[in-house]
Amino acid sequence: RINGQRLWNSLMELAHIGATAKGGVKRLALTDLDRQGRDLVVGWAREAGMAVTVDRIGNVFMRRAGRDDSLAPIVTGSHVDTQPTGGKFDGNYGVLAGIEVVRTLNDHRIVTEAPVEVAIWTNEEGSRFVPVMMGSGVFCGAFSLDTAYAAQDVDGKTVREELERIGYLGGEEPGRHPIGAYFEAHIEQGPVLEDAGKVIGVVPAVMGLSWYDCTVSGMEAHAGPTPMGLRRDALQVAAGIMQEVVAIAHRYPPYGRGTVGMVQVFPNSRNVIPGEVKFSIDLRNVNDELLDTMHEEMLAFVAKTRRETGLGIELERVSYYPPCTFHPVCVDAVRAATGKLGYSTMDVVSGAGHDAIYAARVAPSGMIFVPCKDGISHNEIEDAQPAHLEAGCNVLLHAMLERAGV
Amino acid sequence: RINGQRLWNSLMELAHIGATAKGGVKRLALTDLDRQGRDLVVGWAREAGMAVTVDRIGNVFMRRAGRDDSLAPIVTGSHVDTQPTGGKFDGNYGVLAGIEVVRTLNDHRIVTEAPVEVAIWTNEEGSRFVPVMMGSGVFCGAFSLDTAYAAQDVDGKTVREELERIGYLGGEEPGRHPIGAYFEAHIEQGPVLEDAGKVIGVVPAVMGLSWYDCTVSGMEAHAGPTPMGLRRDALQVAAGIMQEVVAIAHRYPPYGRGTVGMVQVFPNSRNVIPGEVKFSIDLRNVNDELLDTMHEEMLAFVAKTRRETGLGIELERVSYYPPCTFHPVCVDAVRAATGKLGYSTMDVVSGAGHDAIYAARVAPSGMIFVPCKDGISHNEIEDAQPAHLEAGCNVLLHAMLERAGV
Ligand SMILES: NC(=O)NCCC(=O)O
Ligand SMILES: NC(=O)NCCC(=O)O
Repeated sequence: RINGQRLWNSLMELAHIGATAKGGVKRLALTDLDRQGRDLVVGWAREAGMAVTVDRIGNVFMRRAGRDDSLAPIVTGSHVDTQPTGGKFDGNYGVLAGIEVVRTLNDHRIVTEAPVEVAIWTNEEGSRFVPVMMGSGVFCGAFSLDTAYAAQDVDGKTVREELERIGYLGGEEPGRHPIGAYFEAHIEQGPVLEDAGKVIGVVPAVMGLSWYDCTVSGMEAHAGPTPMGLRRDALQVAAGIMQEVVAIAHRYPPYGRGTVGMVQVFPNSRNVIPGEVKFSIDLRNVNDELLDTMHEEMLAFVAKTRRETGLGIELERVSYYPPCTFHPVCVDAVRAATGKLGYSTMDVVSGAGHDAIYAARVAPSGMIFVPCKDGISHNEIEDAQPAHLEAGCNVLLHAMLERAGV
Repeated sequence: RINGQRLWNSLMELAHIGATAKGGVKRLALTDLDRQGRDLVVGWAREAGMAVTVDRIGNVFMRRAGRDDSLAPIVTGSHVDTQPTGGKFDGNYGVLAGIEVVRTLNDHRIVTEAPVEVAIWTNEEGSRFVPVMMGSGVFCGAFSLDTAYAAQDVDGKTVREELERIGYLGGEEPGRHPIGAYFEAHIEQGPVLEDAGKVIGVVPAVMGLSWYDCTVSGMEAHAGPTPMGLRRDALQVAAGIMQEVVAIAHRYPPYGRGTVGMVQVFPNSRNVIPGEVKFSIDLRNVNDELLDTMHEEMLAFVAKTRRETGLGIELERVSYYPPCTFHPVCVDAVRAATGKLGYSTMDVVSGAGHDAIYAARVAPSGMIFVPCKDGISHNEIEDAQPAHLEAGCNVLLHAMLERAGV
């Protein structure tokens, strides 16, 4: 069994880096704080005797040798970047649970057949740069390294220059790194486990996701003299589309999701009719056909609005991955470990994307969920119980041992 | 008659300060560029032999002595601050038309009975700081100097510190400055004159205005796992209120106006359900009772939305002035000058607020409108014809002479 207190202490120490006044964390991808977070974890890995390599998209692999070091490693991991108003557990838990697994193996001088590795994937959150889950996406070939390098934040800084600046532009070719099997422990980020009073979520599948940038172009004009009938108000047209995003999701329950999270209004002055509005659209579903239908309905609504209003509307898809089903070998390993340890459990479909869905394209993969308070994540008040985090880490340990062999 | 070419040249020279790539001007109130704009105009005034005083809210009065210097001066003026994506004429025209009037009086060695003054009022636009029309508002006692000093821009900089920084925190007590009559020349900023093919707009009245800050507070949560039915999405609720702002205006034609120009979403991340949205509301009408009704309907809709959604919604009024009717003495002076000069003319209600409406509280006041291209203002493509600007300035000259006496 792992050391729950040690895991908790590491989580709290990492949470100091980028800590916010409201008890959360702001550690956006490829910022100085991201560097500090990575450095702290890498330091811990070295103390635990692990060897560290970094690939060209900044993914970090921290390796504990196996008896047969030519075997493909059994990998776990997640990310240490956070949302602008994020919590202490999202991502960080998966990485530190991996470190705790290795520390536990060291404590008990256990030698695994295959090597065991812990990965830190770059820019999982997708807040600062799209595509989301960038490091694992490049790793599995979902999009190219050049696409990722060229991604810019709102200030025009690119992924490539920021990777170099923080010293995490490694030399290894992404994807060259072998993976025998991949597991990821994560807080659920939704209310299902807590509502059902279960400790461990076995994750059979992850919803697919479609992200868009929508730009509505109207005509800037003075808010006073311009008659209502002559306006080309980009914000009013945008508001109608924003509402449709949610309406579409409501039409495809129970797994349809629709969110507008980001909005920019130009010129953003009180007495100017907005000339341009840019906003993000996030559509999800666990069923691929329904996600396609939602996509089509979005396109149709935009086309209709364009016709009816005469305003310019552009809709560009900026991220997409289909729903993902995890490999039975890994799902069963998680289920078996949970049973052996005697934790209450249920299956939970993931609404959040995770690096595991890209890992699943190159190796058998599975996930372990633990409850989070009120199902709240992507919020500074995100919280989780030490006992649940410990349980998830124990399941991770046993699932990995089952795959790695002792 | 004034010198139209000289007026145009001065307008184009001033438009260099803060010139934008699209041919507009960005010269926000109390920035370094505002200082440069003021310095240029003040320099021209000194060359024309005028004496300059600055009051404690940064209003500048440039004085040409009269034969009887104890008489209250006949004042004209406007502002040199602009919108973030503003034009070359809004405000700037009114100030430079005043300078051109003085230059013309000098050319012809005309001595007026009363002194003639040109005013630059501080922060008319209200883009960077509210209340809007701040300098003239403090001058006429619509709100206090302390209220104005405490106003902050989005970065937390105050009016008082910015006035000091740019060197325009003067010593004169605002409002102490006597005004015998006030005239203001301005582009119409709407389509009425151009549509009717008229050159001069006589302005009987200005719409009243109510500005609000609205804040909707929901609950940040993850855009994937959070079921649609459990969301407290601040943006969706805000979108409904934004649409109602426009719907209210449509219910009170022809002079009802409703605009949402400024929006901020928190935390503004693609995969986070917005926890808070702040936005501005601008309601206008030329009829005071209807403006009140619009205000009441806004409050009622917000209350209803609060009840129905359970989200927190705050609505704070941040600027207000009632509709304004100009003094017959000044309106008639404008009308008479227009007739004498033979320009085509019509009455035009102003949808934009102007410093003249605050001047009107302390002295008889009137305005002169000239057409602008396609009725577009608060836009970098704002444009006006040299011949129209010249005509408006001639009317200003003769209306002022009529009041000042020769
Ligand atoms: N786990 C997580 O928060 N991932 C971010 C990508 C997403 O929006 O699902
Ligand atoms: N003239 C002008 O643009 N004034 C700004 C105040 C308003 O919004 O009416």
